Amino acid sequence: MPVFEHILANFALHVNLDVAEEAYVTSVLQHKTLEKNKMLLETGETCRNLYFIDKGCLRVFNRDKDGLEHNVLFCPENWWAADMTSFSGQVPAYYSIAALETTELFYFSYQSLEQLYIDVPKLERFFRILAQNGFSLYQRRVNSIISRSAEERYIQFQHLYPKLEQRIAQKHIASYLGITPVFLSMIRKRNG
Amino acid sequence: MPVFEHILANFALHVNLDVAEEAYVTSVLQHKTLEKNKMLLETGETCRNLYFIDKGCLRVFNRDKDGLEHNVLFCPENWWAADMTSFSGQVPAYYSIAALETTELFYFSYQSLEQLYIDVPKLERFFRILAQNGFSLYQRRVNSIISRSAEERYIQFQHLYPKLEQRIAQKHIASYLGITPVFLSMIRKRNG
Repeated sequence: MPVFEHILANFALHVNLDVAEEAYVTSVLQHKTLEKNKMLLETGETCRNLYFIDKGCLRVFNRDKDGLEHNVLFCPENWWAADMTSFSGQVPAYYSIAALETTELFYFSYQSLEQLYIDVPKLERFFRILAQNGFSLYQRRVNSIISRSAEERYIQFQHLYPKLEQRIAQKHIASYLGITPVFLSMIRKRNG
Repeated sequence: MPVFEHILANFALHVNLDVAEEAYVTSVLQHKTLEKNKMLLETGETCRNLYFIDKGCLRVFNRDKDGLEHNVLFCPENWWAADMTSFSGQVPAYYSIAALETTELFYFSYQSLEQLYIDVPKLERFFRILAQNGFSLYQRRVNSIISRSAEERYIQFQHLYPKLEQRIAQKHIASYLGITPVFLSMIRKRNG
């Protein structure tokens, strides 16, 4: 029997679901355990589900034409993950998603979420705010890649993801910052 | 007496407002005429309104550290414009917005839209879809700057903005494509 404590607390940030609505929403939720390093979504596939991370951590990344991976986003506990463009338009994904740790997920399929919007209209509000926040996060991320130094991006990473640094491999943080692991190690010594 | 035909048709793309709801929504809308080349939002200000372009065209841009302007987006008739991050969080704007032509705008203030979400919950759905589409557009834009050639970006621009090319100055299209006006002119000759 899954425990819905975290995801219900997450909904409660923006909407007040009554007991019947909570029961209905959780009855539609699906659950999945993703082993460490396994793929959740491959670039080019359609992202059919919207995931809530109950435990563990995902990374969202893409590959450049030389096959190098660039981490765009980490999604630890209580984050939502999807290729938003792929999910909302049901078109092929630009990004890939993989597990950095064994990860416990809840998810809505595209069809079940479309039906939920009809049955529980309060969820329109929740996912409107989630979409706005996702947009802002993505915009800040793009702007900081363009206009911030690696050191500033490292400080931003630490603020956005408290304590994540101890959990994931150096190479993944370096890839997120757009620098080499050696350069990351220098920055950490200066900021240690 | 303003004519609400375009904005009501825009809402009807995603939600069915009844006559009373249409009357209520339009009673809250404000109207503004912005002269050509005038500013609607300056970087650093808080974006207090969400604008619908009834007629004319806006550009959304930022300035780099050398003061050069980079056009990120054009917003002709039937588009919505705001610095979304600034508007949704009521924080200082990263982008600036200015008129490329004399532009007729309808707009919701932040407070009036928050109240509208309570009074007309259907609008949650409309603006959820708008936020998702905005996210996708921004993501495609960022990805094409990173991974597409100037020529491919020019073709994308023509598809996204049919007939806009004839209305706005070369330098603004060149700035959107991230190239010089001379290079744009070469591309146009090749694709003419």
